[in-house]
Amino acid sequence: MVEITLLGTGGTLPVKGRWLSSAMIRCMGTSILFDCGEGTQMAAREADLPLGGVDILCLSHFHGDHVAGLPGFLLSMGHEGRRTPVDIYGPAGLTEVVTALRILAPFLPFEVRLHEIRTDQPVTLQTIGHLSVSAFPLEHSVPCLGYTVDLFRPGRFNVEKALFNHVPQPLWSLLQKTDSATDETGRVYTRDMVLGPDRKGIHILLAQDTRPTALLEKMMSGRALCILEGMYGSDDKREKAVETFHMTFTEVAFMASRAKPDEIWFTHYSPSLPDPETYIEDAQTIFPRLKLGTDGMKTILTYPDDSDC
Amino acid sequence: MVEITLLGTGGTLPVKGRWLSSAMIRCMGTSILFDCGEGTQMAAREADLPLGGVDILCLSHFHGDHVAGLPGFLLSMGHEGRRTPVDIYGPAGLTEVVTALRILAPFLPFEVRLHEIRTDQPVTLQTIGHLSVSAFPLEHSVPCLGYTVDLFRPGRFNVEKALFNHVPQPLWSLLQKTDSATDETGRVYTRDMVLGPDRKGIHILLAQDTRPTALLEKMMSGRALCILEGMYGSDDKREKAVETFHMTFTEVAFMASRAKPDEIWFTHYSPSLPDPETYIEDAQTIFPRLKLGTDGMKTILTYPDDSDC
Repeated sequence: MVEITLLGTGGTLPVKGRWLSSAMIRCMGTSILFDCGEGTQMAAREADLPLGGVDILCLSHFHGDHVAGLPGFLLSMGHEGRRTPVDIYGPAGLTEVVTALRILAPFLPFEVRLHEIRTDQPVTLQTIGHLSVSAFPLEHSVPCLGYTVDLFRPGRFNVEKALFNHVPQPLWSLLQKTDSATDETGRVYTRDMVLGPDRKGIHILLAQDTRPTALLEKMMSGRALCILEGMYGSDDKREKAVETFHMTFTEVAFMASRAKPDEIWFTHYSPSLPDPETYIEDAQTIFPRLKLGTDGMKTILTYPDDSDC
Repeated sequence: MVEITLLGTGGTLPVKGRWLSSAMIRCMGTSILFDCGEGTQMAAREADLPLGGVDILCLSHFHGDHVAGLPGFLLSMGHEGRRTPVDIYGPAGLTEVVTALRILAPFLPFEVRLHEIRTDQPVTLQTIGHLSVSAFPLEHSVPCLGYTVDLFRPGRFNVEKALFNHVPQPLWSLLQKTDSATDETGRVYTRDMVLGPDRKGIHILLAQDTRPTALLEKMMSGRALCILEGMYGSDDKREKAVETFHMTFTEVAFMASRAKPDEIWFTHYSPSLPDPETYIEDAQTIFPRLKLGTDGMKTILTYPDDSDC
């Protein structure tokens, strides 16, 4: 299963009742934090999520509302007992920005590994078992990344296939857990020799601070959940959205109507949008499975065909 | 009058229900912010204090819990319409730290003037009319400053003195508002020629992240209000307080029993002190006029002998 929590849903500035936009995904013992604006550590505590458990930190870009909470978050991770390395991913400029901010957190009881991602297409960052984290470029006023989290699910064990491939029975169980195994003669057998076709996994996308792009729309396809910026509710703000490299509800809805993800959650509302509920119904006429994200909103996604993963 | 608001009362880490320690003082159109940990801008909004109105920012030192909110605060000041210069005071290292943090706020619609204060004794930073802001050194693990805010009050108009000094009657009113005035012959008259002795003003002190010192105790004398760290409540934590350059309630109370300020407010509680009320009564047996500060706690101080200033 994959647990997704919206820590905050505000853009640009923190306002009363809205922490700055960030999200935490936890799956198979790995915790991934997406963006870290001022107050993210407080929002994580409010959501009862352990800061010290964050293994991977994905930063979209380096505007203050997405990264100003980083030094405090890192210090608190240390206070909460973090001792193993943390990987931080972000676009061009990551090293310069994190190095500057660490003037407030020069000594940490864990290693911080920085990975500056310069790419014009999707790139896989880490694969941990069946869990994979990837980044792809967005279109903002500065280099900006969207992220995907994919929990792949191998096919079922297929005894006919195992027999057809002459896989020795003692290796059948092992090959459901590892990529390959060797018999006593040195012959190598691979996982695909005993498993049926891959089953549908759980696929999530997070993208904020961007204009609509063809790549974003393509990446939204087949996702159980897309967490997307809903900076502006009214279509009247489209010009403003173009100018500031953001999106309106309707623009997101049109992309979704073509990409057809299972569900979309809006986040990163402008401080000028205190009432996103005013605009959601119009957008839902274009794509019905839109939801307004709120601070602390949480879901647990399981594999489509059963609840055991 | 002087309005004092505790924006937050937490030390080291923000915890649920406690913003990080900071305070705002407003007097005669001037707003002064003391420390700016992560979340200070949210705390100021909760207290309905305008961020854009802050004229002077006094930083005690550069541990994250006192300064990590600075880039966000500066950005929000700009969003709230600040266009006139802001003065930031702090100990050695100010320029390096603020320059590093401004990687998130490189372009601001107002000038930021940095004043690095290296001193081993009290020094006046700004005088605006009768209002004066000063700094003095504390004893922490890094260079650290305490601050005082003094609203001085001139004496009453004294007609006998004005007549004795042959001050022309048309200048009597003017000399109650300005330091000096000149008659048509070019002769200069000074304020002290028409006023009685200075009356008691309003004197406030703020000091956190320090051991008790002789200078701090001396500076506390004659103050209407001292806002002091109450990092540790129990006397059992004295060793820890020495080690981390902080104070216990009792240590503050003993200083106060000798310096005799009108009132003390505790702030900057350790996250390990969720229940400061447990320890306050013991400290009050040493100095009764101790109060536990809480987030958003506010007072308005007026001149001792009337409410008009």
